[in-house]
Amino acid sequence: MDGWRTGQPWQGLRLNISYTFPVTTTARPTDLRINGARLMDRLMSLAEIGAIDGGGCARLALTDADRDGRDLVVSWMRDLGLEVTVDTVGNVVGTWSVGGGGAVMTGSHIDTVRTGGKYDGNLGVLAGLEIIQTVQESGWMPPRPLAVTFFTNEEGARYAPDMMGSLAYVGGIGVEEVLGTIGIDGSRVGDELLRIGYAGTTPCPAPAPHAFVELHIEQGPVLEKEGATIGAVTGVQGISWREVTIEGQSNHAGTTPMSMRHDPAYAASLIAVFLRDLARRYGGNQVCTVGKIDLHPNLVNVVPARAVLTLDVRNTDEGLLRRAESEITERLDALAAEEGVTITSRQLARFEPVEFGESMVTLVEATASDHGLSSMRLPSGAGHDAQMLARICPSGMVFVPSHNGISHNPAEHTDTADIVAGCDVLLQMMITLTTQETP
Amino acid sequence: MDGWRTGQPWQGLRLNISYTFPVTTTARPTDLRINGARLMDRLMSLAEIGAIDGGGCARLALTDADRDGRDLVVSWMRDLGLEVTVDTVGNVVGTWSVGGGGAVMTGSHIDTVRTGGKYDGNLGVLAGLEIIQTVQESGWMPPRPLAVTFFTNEEGARYAPDMMGSLAYVGGIGVEEVLGTIGIDGSRVGDELLRIGYAGTTPCPAPAPHAFVELHIEQGPVLEKEGATIGAVTGVQGISWREVTIEGQSNHAGTTPMSMRHDPAYAASLIAVFLRDLARRYGGNQVCTVGKIDLHPNLVNVVPARAVLTLDVRNTDEGLLRRAESEITERLDALAAEEGVTITSRQLARFEPVEFGESMVTLVEATASDHGLSSMRLPSGAGHDAQMLARICPSGMVFVPSHNGISHNPAEHTDTADIVAGCDVLLQMMITLTTQETP
Repeated sequence: MDGWRTGQPWQGLRLNISYTFPVTTTARPTDLRINGARLMDRLMSLAEIGAIDGGGCARLALTDADRDGRDLVVSWMRDLGLEVTVDTVGNVVGTWSVGGGGAVMTGSHIDTVRTGGKYDGNLGVLAGLEIIQTVQESGWMPPRPLAVTFFTNEEGARYAPDMMGSLAYVGGIGVEEVLGTIGIDGSRVGDELLRIGYAGTTPCPAPAPHAFVELHIEQGPVLEKEGATIGAVTGVQGISWREVTIEGQSNHAGTTPMSMRHDPAYAASLIAVFLRDLARRYGGNQVCTVGKIDLHPNLVNVVPARAVLTLDVRNTDEGLLRRAESEITERLDALAAEEGVTITSRQLARFEPVEFGESMVTLVEATASDHGLSSMRLPSGAGHDAQMLARICPSGMVFVPSHNGISHNPAEHTDTADIVAGCDVLLQMMITLTTQETP
Repeated sequence: MDGWRTGQPWQGLRLNISYTFPVTTTARPTDLRINGARLMDRLMSLAEIGAIDGGGCARLALTDADRDGRDLVVSWMRDLGLEVTVDTVGNVVGTWSVGGGGAVMTGSHIDTVRTGGKYDGNLGVLAGLEIIQTVQESGWMPPRPLAVTFFTNEEGARYAPDMMGSLAYVGGIGVEEVLGTIGIDGSRVGDELLRIGYAGTTPCPAPAPHAFVELHIEQGPVLEKEGATIGAVTGVQGISWREVTIEGQSNHAGTTPMSMRHDPAYAASLIAVFLRDLARRYGGNQVCTVGKIDLHPNLVNVVPARAVLTLDVRNTDEGLLRRAESEITERLDALAAEEGVTITSRQLARFEPVEFGESMVTLVEATASDHGLSSMRLPSGAGHDAQMLARICPSGMVFVPSHNGISHNPAEHTDTADIVAGCDVLLQMMITLTTQETP
């Protein structure tokens, strides 16, 4: 019973499990429910690592806090008798090796942004642990392995790109490139993996699992606004990030006639207004954001010399996303001529939209219905590890509501009832998927 | 000959002057010209103190560099036999005590912004020294004293408000308030004056001089564009500085529908566009600038929680300036309601427009004409010490062209011919003013 801790809420359950589980029923169990208190207890224990004011977490990828979080989750994996592997980019997989064939996998990430919440990512990982434990305790032996994973550096807050671990897991980025990546603090991924003890030896990319399903908080306001408990995620928006640099003519704010100005701050403002108008014109799922503006020298009485701003443009439709990018490029060219400024831009990130298979989306809806839960289809506006896994196996996502749509913020919150409901849906989906030859 | 240095270009003139000057002519001299090489030599010597890359200067008020600059200029004042006084806020006046009654005073400042040029302020001070030396060498005894001054902290780059020394000199701000002012680096004006040895004892405010005239580079592009050598400054624009804080709802850029956003960056952009439109509608001398925008948290994929921006609004007409301020307030109120954000603002600075007397403006034009120089009337878009002196005595300003209108920048440049022409005009104006009972 190595790895068991004393004094934990689930300690009393110790006697119910062992490393070999008798097959007590061959029919797929449909009435299993997870232990909500145990799930919440693990969530709160993990949230104590890197805790920040306001109830949030700061566990930037591969920092000491991330290592401590990893160690805790790995200890829980070992507690459940899972086979734990760490691959060459630090992705950790815990597998309950029962049955045969590819595993039905779930998981997410446990790294956070600098001012993150308790649920983003963590919920998806700890739900996987809870589900495996629930099935183990039920005595039912699934016909395929069940696996739970956490991927390295999903947030991208310390190292770019985001979703780095899952991208490498599916072969979308080379291991050497990952290891050589330099972070915002000058650190190198490979060095940090070694330092925190997570430079594993399991090969990456990995063989495709049978299926992958990820439970995640919505991080947006739609489910709450529509009164739905379960989100059947249809896909993930395509993302286009562009950094725009505008060079003008720095000058005295009092002495320079308006007609002689080449003002990068004014041009940046026109771009922000244009982007809002573009989103309005396109409608649907089109979103556009200017979240970062840096002026130089940034003084009250100086027409700036330079503005650097970022454009975040997303759509679920690749054609529309390309049309938006093209319109923006045209507008930047016209604006440079109109204002007598120089405008250059570079792509910071570009991911095409991902569509999850219809059968997976239907399975979320049907399972929610079986549980008497309201559900709705919606796309994900945020990127998730599941979109990477969709490259190599049938994949899907289950969303639960975010209070006020707030995320990447210590105030991030999801009601416990919704968390438990989402985890129960994921549990039943994974059970179903283990019995399907083709998900 | 205490204070004389050896090896200076004007050292050979030593024998020509002494502390008592015989009256060789009683008629007002009209053909005197300054020594351009000597003036430029002093300008370049002063520019060596706090020199920065690109040919500029960093002599923030009351720093070691400012002290070194002050020491050098005071040594030059003493070389000319001037009576040097330092008042309680560190303003330095060098007076050639001849004749009787109030002095005809000139001067400016020698503090700079962090990335300043060689000419801003310095020219006005060193022109005063050159003019006094020229008159001394001519043998003509003016009927009134001639004085040259440099005022403390004109730029306002280390301590607010700007034009601090001249404002105190005319009684517009109390000495205790000046001495207690805390700067951007946490330093206190009173402590720094003591530290650098410029906490003087001459009372402040001071008695009004007979007249005050300041030579300054235009810091704008108008003279160069119009092909005029001399600017007859009609007045100084009124200035309204406002800091606007917009609080919205920070959220995920991908997951938050456009209809549910309360985006401070978008609101800030609308304000910048509104200000440009206002300036266009008002026309004339109206200028508006958004030179500073700070977003929080300022990340590519986060709708910001907060934007802080500054509005710099100037007009030569107080009525129009008030109307602009009022329109801006109305727009901010409407915008807060439209976007569901909270907007607060505070006044950072407010100076009413200043008009120099018509006789002084005419004197600039007439003197330029006597010298065969082209001139034009124009308002100053920047604040200057002369606008403070205008509160207590007849005051005026002479502008010379700024290459490309660039100032507060190491690239600041004025052709030597223009500098000499401006200084000659100032010389003749001061001679004329000494002979006028009422300027």
